[in-house]
Amino acid sequence: MNHLTNRQVVLRRRPTGLVQPDDTELIEGPAPVLGKGEALVRNTYLGIDAAVRTWLDDQPGYLPPVQIGEAIRAGGVGEVIETRCDAYAVGDIVTTLSDFQELAVVRDDVFSTVIAGPVDQLSMLSVYGSTGATAYFGVTDIGKPQPGETVVVSAAAGATGSLAGQIAKIAGARVVGIAGGPEKCRVVVEEFGFDACLDYRAGDLPAQLKEHCPKRVDVFFDNVGGPILDAVLGRLAQGGRVALCGVISSYLTGEHPGPANYTNLLARCGTMQGFNTLNNWGRFDEAFTKLRAWEAEGRLVHREHIHDGLEHAVDALNGLFTGTNIGKTVVRVSDPTVS
Amino acid sequence: MNHLTNRQVVLRRRPTGLVQPDDTELIEGPAPVLGKGEALVRNTYLGIDAAVRTWLDDQPGYLPPVQIGEAIRAGGVGEVIETRCDAYAVGDIVTTLSDFQELAVVRDDVFSTVIAGPVDQLSMLSVYGSTGATAYFGVTDIGKPQPGETVVVSAAAGATGSLAGQIAKIAGARVVGIAGGPEKCRVVVEEFGFDACLDYRAGDLPAQLKEHCPKRVDVFFDNVGGPILDAVLGRLAQGGRVALCGVISSYLTGEHPGPANYTNLLARCGTMQGFNTLNNWGRFDEAFTKLRAWEAEGRLVHREHIHDGLEHAVDALNGLFTGTNIGKTVVRVSDPTVS
Repeated sequence: MNHLTNRQVVLRRRPTGLVQPDDTELIEGPAPVLGKGEALVRNTYLGIDAAVRTWLDDQPGYLPPVQIGEAIRAGGVGEVIETRCDAYAVGDIVTTLSDFQELAVVRDDVFSTVIAGPVDQLSMLSVYGSTGATAYFGVTDIGKPQPGETVVVSAAAGATGSLAGQIAKIAGARVVGIAGGPEKCRVVVEEFGFDACLDYRAGDLPAQLKEHCPKRVDVFFDNVGGPILDAVLGRLAQGGRVALCGVISSYLTGEHPGPANYTNLLARCGTMQGFNTLNNWGRFDEAFTKLRAWEAEGRLVHREHIHDGLEHAVDALNGLFTGTNIGKTVVRVSDPTVS
Repeated sequence: MNHLTNRQVVLRRRPTGLVQPDDTELIEGPAPVLGKGEALVRNTYLGIDAAVRTWLDDQPGYLPPVQIGEAIRAGGVGEVIETRCDAYAVGDIVTTLSDFQELAVVRDDVFSTVIAGPVDQLSMLSVYGSTGATAYFGVTDIGKPQPGETVVVSAAAGATGSLAGQIAKIAGARVVGIAGGPEKCRVVVEEFGFDACLDYRAGDLPAQLKEHCPKRVDVFFDNVGGPILDAVLGRLAQGGRVALCGVISSYLTGEHPGPANYTNLLARCGTMQGFNTLNNWGRFDEAFTKLRAWEAEGRLVHREHIHDGLEHAVDALNGLFTGTNIGKTVVRVSDPTVS
C-alpha cells in the first residue's frame, strides 16, 4: 500500500471566529505506515459537528485541542483497506475519529467500531452515530418528556435537534422548535414533524415562546446557549428540565453571556443538566435499536447535507455557524464501495 | 380578648434596595376578630429570611407579593391564646406565617403546624423549621455528597448555609464555606466546623477556590448567585451538582447577571437544580428526626441572632443584605411563656 497518498486538512493557525483560508492547509503526504495492532481505513464520509470548532481552540475540553500541524479532528466512517490486527478485516466498515483526511489509522479503542452488515454509511454519521445517540440520551435520560408536556428544541433543523424533537414527539409531547429563518422553520415542521417552529431571527423570542408555549416549557433540549437559552429559561414550567447539549452560540467567540433567567430554576424547581454522549457508550445499542424501530415504523426521519470533497470540509464546518445547514452536515471524502 | 391590640409593621411603599424608613410603618390597631375555624396566636419570634425581601417586590413568586397596607410576611412561632376551632387549643405552640405583627390568625392550613411537647421556640425557626429542612433536603436530595467529595457552601455563616455545611460534613465530605469578612469565616470554621472558609471580600475568589478545592467542587450549595455562583461553576468537578437554594445577591436590585460558567455543566456533565422546601412538606419529620439525632450526638450546632422587639424587624431584614448576620436572624416579638 506504499503507493497510496494521504491528503489532509491540517491546522496552521488557531482561528478567531470562522475558520479563515490561512488557518488551515490541504497537504498531501505518504500514507501512514501501520504498526502492529493497527488497520488502515479509507475514509468515505466525515461527520461535521460544531464541537469540531471547539477543538481548534487552545482550551481544555473532553478531548485535547488539535495541535498546529495536525489534521483537524472529526468523526467519520470508512472502509478498512489494510490490517495488522485481529480487530479489523479488510472490507470492514468502521466508524472512528477519521479526521479531515483521506486515510485514517484505527486501533481497537473506544472511538472505533466495526459496523455489522451492509449499511448506509451516511446514516452512521447521523441517526446511527453519536448524533442519534446524543438526541436519544438527552431526551430520554434528561428531558424525560411526558405525554402532553411541551418540549422546546433549539437548532431544531440541525442534526441533533431534528432527531431530539422527533423522539420527544414519539414520547407524546408537544414539540416546538427554534431555528433561524423561514426555510429552516418550514423543514422543521413539514419534514421533521414538529408542532411549531419559532424563527429566532424574526425577533422577540420571549413573545413567540409565550404564544406557542401557553403552558410553559417542561423540557428544553438546548444546542445553542446564549440569549436563546435565557429566553426559554424565562418560560420554564414548574419542574422543568433543561438538557444542555451544546453552546454553539459561544463556540466562535468563546464568549457566552450567562443566562440571567437561571433563577427560574430556583423559582420553578427546575433542573439544568449537561451530558456527554460518550459517557453512554455502553448503551449505544439500546439507542440504535430504538431509533431503527422508529425509522422502520415511519415515525423518524433523518436528513444529511453532503459537501462533496475533502477540500470543502472547512466550508462545511463554517456552515454550521453561518446557518446554512439542515440535518447532519457531512463531507464526502470518497465513494463508499459498500452501501 | 377585645381589649387586645395588635401592633404591625405594614408596607407603605415598595422599597428599592434596602428597606427605607418611609417604606414601612409600625401601626397599632385592634386585635383580629376570629371567625369559625380560626385561632389567635400571640407571636413570640419571627424568622427573618432573605425571601421576605422578595415578597415586597411586585413580582410573582411562589407566594404572592405583600400588598401595600398589609403586614410584611414572615414565618414565625407563637402561642395560641384564643381558639374557635378543633385544630388548635389555647396554649399550643404553633409555627405559621406570623407576619411582622404581634398577633396572628391561624387556620388549619399548610403553613401552620402545632409543635408537640415543650420546645425551644427559637430552634423552631432555625434548625427545626423550614431553614433546617431546606439545608437537609438541599444537601441530601440534590447535593448528595459522598465521603471524600468536596462541598462548597455560600453564605456559609447564614442560617441555611451553616446547617448545610454541617450536614455535608456528617456525610463525610470536605466542606469549604464562602462568607463575607474574617469574623464570619472564623465562626464558620471554629463554630460550625467547616474545613475552610473563603472570604469573598478578600478578592479573587476563583484563585481561593483553586487553592482550597484542589480536586474541584463536587457539590455546591448556593444561597447567593451572581459572581459567586459563576466562580464556583468555574471550578466544578466532573459530575458536579449545584443545589440552588437562593439568589440573595439579586434580591435587592432585581438584577442577577447570569453565570457564564454554566457551560461547565456541559463540559463536566454537571447538574444545577433549584428546589423549594415547601414541596417536601410531607417529609419534614424525616428531616427533623435526623437533625435532632445529630444535634443530640453533638455533631450539629445552630445559632440564632436575636433582634429584640417588633420595631427592629425591618433592621433585622436589612441586616441580611448588609452582612451583619451570623446564624438565623430572629426577631423577638414577645417572651415565650413555655420554653
